[in-house]
Amino acid sequence: MSTKPPSGTRDFLPDEIRRREHVIGVVRDVYERYGFEPLETPAFENIDTLLGKYGDEGNKLIFKILRRGEHEGSGEADLALRYDLTVPLARVVAQYQNELPKFFKRYQIQPVWRADRPAKGRFREFYQCDIDSIGSTSTLVEVQLLGAVTEVLSTLGFHDFEVRVNHRQLLRSLLVNALAPEAQYPAILVALDKFDKIGREGVDKELIAQGISEAVRTRICNWAGAAFRQDWLDKLEPQFPLIDDDGRAAFENLRQIFRLSAEMPSADRLRFQPSLARGLSYYTGAIMEIAVPDLAGSLGGGGRYDNLIGMFLGRDIPACGFSLGLERIIFVMTERNMFPPGVARSAADVMVTLWNEQSRQDAIALATELRHSGLRVDLYSEAHKIGGQLKYAVGRNVPLVTIVGEDERARGEVKIKNLLTREEQSVSRADVGGRLREILASNRSASK
Amino acid sequence: MSTKPPSGTRDFLPDEIRRREHVIGVVRDVYERYGFEPLETPAFENIDTLLGKYGDEGNKLIFKILRRGEHEGSGEADLALRYDLTVPLARVVAQYQNELPKFFKRYQIQPVWRADRPAKGRFREFYQCDIDSIGSTSTLVEVQLLGAVTEVLSTLGFHDFEVRVNHRQLLRSLLVNALAPEAQYPAILVALDKFDKIGREGVDKELIAQGISEAVRTRICNWAGAAFRQDWLDKLEPQFPLIDDDGRAAFENLRQIFRLSAEMPSADRLRFQPSLARGLSYYTGAIMEIAVPDLAGSLGGGGRYDNLIGMFLGRDIPACGFSLGLERIIFVMTERNMFPPGVARSAADVMVTLWNEQSRQDAIALATELRHSGLRVDLYSEAHKIGGQLKYAVGRNVPLVTIVGEDERARGEVKIKNLLTREEQSVSRADVGGRLREILASNRSASK
Repeated sequence: MSTKPPSGTRDFLPDEIRRREHVIGVVRDVYERYGFEPLETPAFENIDTLLGKYGDEGNKLIFKILRRGEHEGSGEADLALRYDLTVPLARVVAQYQNELPKFFKRYQIQPVWRADRPAKGRFREFYQCDIDSIGSTSTLVEVQLLGAVTEVLSTLGFHDFEVRVNHRQLLRSLLVNALAPEAQYPAILVALDKFDKIGREGVDKELIAQGISEAVRTRICNWAGAAFRQDWLDKLEPQFPLIDDDGRAAFENLRQIFRLSAEMPSADRLRFQPSLARGLSYYTGAIMEIAVPDLAGSLGGGGRYDNLIGMFLGRDIPACGFSLGLERIIFVMTERNMFPPGVARSAADVMVTLWNEQSRQDAIALATELRHSGLRVDLYSEAHKIGGQLKYAVGRNVPLVTIVGEDERARGEVKIKNLLTREEQSVSRADVGGRLREILASNRSASK
Repeated sequence: MSTKPPSGTRDFLPDEIRRREHVIGVVRDVYERYGFEPLETPAFENIDTLLGKYGDEGNKLIFKILRRGEHEGSGEADLALRYDLTVPLARVVAQYQNELPKFFKRYQIQPVWRADRPAKGRFREFYQCDIDSIGSTSTLVEVQLLGAVTEVLSTLGFHDFEVRVNHRQLLRSLLVNALAPEAQYPAILVALDKFDKIGREGVDKELIAQGISEAVRTRICNWAGAAFRQDWLDKLEPQFPLIDDDGRAAFENLRQIFRLSAEMPSADRLRFQPSLARGLSYYTGAIMEIAVPDLAGSLGGGGRYDNLIGMFLGRDIPACGFSLGLERIIFVMTERNMFPPGVARSAADVMVTLWNEQSRQDAIALATELRHSGLRVDLYSEAHKIGGQLKYAVGRNVPLVTIVGEDERARGEVKIKNLLTREEQSVSRADVGGRLREILASNRSASK
């Protein structure tokens, strides 16, 4: 029987968990500073809650749970694993409408499951870190969201990312003014969205394949690819003679987002990208995406979606959200060696060795004392040869060990061995905790 | 369509999550101080990994995941949701045997899923907090585990729990020496385990129902219920004339656990309870359980199980573990009002109100500044009447708001309103962060 985790899933051993916890800690801390509150929902939902919410393709990727007991033989499913964090949020908004505040700002950091074909960097179990602001149409919502996700990435040490911003209604105006055939809007947007990956020529080729006329293609590519600069917003609008009120509002909305972000951490990160389309069909307003140079995909994305969150209530509730991809962030941070040294924590600060069976009581007393002083202490549990115990400590990256042999015991002392520097010193039993902390501090500053 | 979470599962709104995070934080911190390292495994396992590991009853309670794509119609399951944290650990030990240290001490805090009939306090999705020490038969392992779980509970504020300890081989000796019929050992142990709930008479009644003779019943109940004191260990052994080597080793093992725990936080908590049997059949040595007066079930339990962790390797690997039940701990702490005041965190430290549309830029700048100073800041996103904004802040338990009206703006000031004391004060814009922190600190010390 294979002992690998199921296809597309991973076991996380200690070092990997510490990296993940570091990132999650930063995400959580920043989101809290922006006034978002935590929400968690069950791993599975009633199957009807999820089916039909993610399109035909999505339906196929949902993990479905077999009915139990006498119904198991029916082969029917009544539950399904969480596929994203947005549909559960919509359910929560409907279920607790009387308890939740008028403006509900929540973050949610939980795994989701999709039966995608596993590939390098694509998993069947992966975490999403979502923030959503429910209940307000104010542009301040977009501005705060952009500030929060920017601050997450800056705090994690990213200094070369950009936050690309566009607007669904502006895209519509672009297509209307390019005189593109309406039936082909969705296919054109899919091609357009690849502009920064495949370039103008690539997009043009895809549009040719769809039978789009040269005049239309030229207008689309000129407008969408012209320049990624904020002032282009002002230059673009006059070029849309067929613009309607929604289109004009979209331009104004984007201008406001840029203007109001001037005092936010996102100020220097925002970039107007008229080719950005984003796949999900439910967006209704501003859309955004975070890109780093060395990653084909994005680190996260989001936008305004005013018609979705109320789906279980039967009325529209405005909403704007952003989802950061934990796995991608960790992937890039690992590739670039961006984790601070303190994240790679050893199994313990110090290991108390066991001299012989008779000294077990003393070893326990020492370990207990050191723990009380706040240290993380492992106690070697068998009276093996000291050499073997030291080897074990080295293997677990424990920097310090204590040894109390016959001599030390007779003198009321403890020998401290620094496994990084190989230095040894004997200190009186009363001073051992303090001395260990001093050595740990100097090890730390040496490793910086 | 119902918007409730699926039967037996729960949505966790912010206040509840903060309580859960508090408990998980303490568990994690204490386990780390004892040298345990974190492990996480996928939510589902290949179905063959789980089937047959939890008995017939367990098999029925496993949530099974339908095969996907063309195989979906077959009604077959190929995956199953994690049922406990022990079988995944056994798989991990087999899979990573060359990477893991000789003694692998891991903690794992993750949800498990069981299709039990939901009832008050019994959920289909619940968290387990497990620690296990793999690879050593030393009694120090039990002693350290008991110290760690005791310290978790003490740190959480429990002061009236006891850690009941017994030994599987001692139970066997008890039954042998009571001349109980061997075929009935399992049923007798089930009855015995209820001693502290249903008393001697209750146990006697159950044994009568099983046709156990009076002489046997008397011996069992005398021995098992006599006294819950450590020195009873010494009194009990001589009463077992038919004791074998395993039985003698069990007595000695328990005596060592008590003796070596003298310097541990568990010292005053341990209690020898000869009626403790614990349900799981896989224990081979010491068994333990934590009880509090006002809860029928236990807060957690564990023991030594030397024949299980190697199941995927085909050889025995010694192991000893303990599992704390997060939901029960939270249940008792909530009932007893044991959460420190700081855990009930408001949505933000301060809310920046929005005077009018024209002041959006200023409001954003103020919110950004305050966040940089480390405060958790919500920004009201619509220019509603100030009264409504204050009401919203009160509803979210935000203690402080800032207001910048025309007057304040003209004077370069910010008005701070303390929603707890209803006091107002205007401070210069430069001083607002510092003043807010002072007020928060004095609010906090007032609430203690």
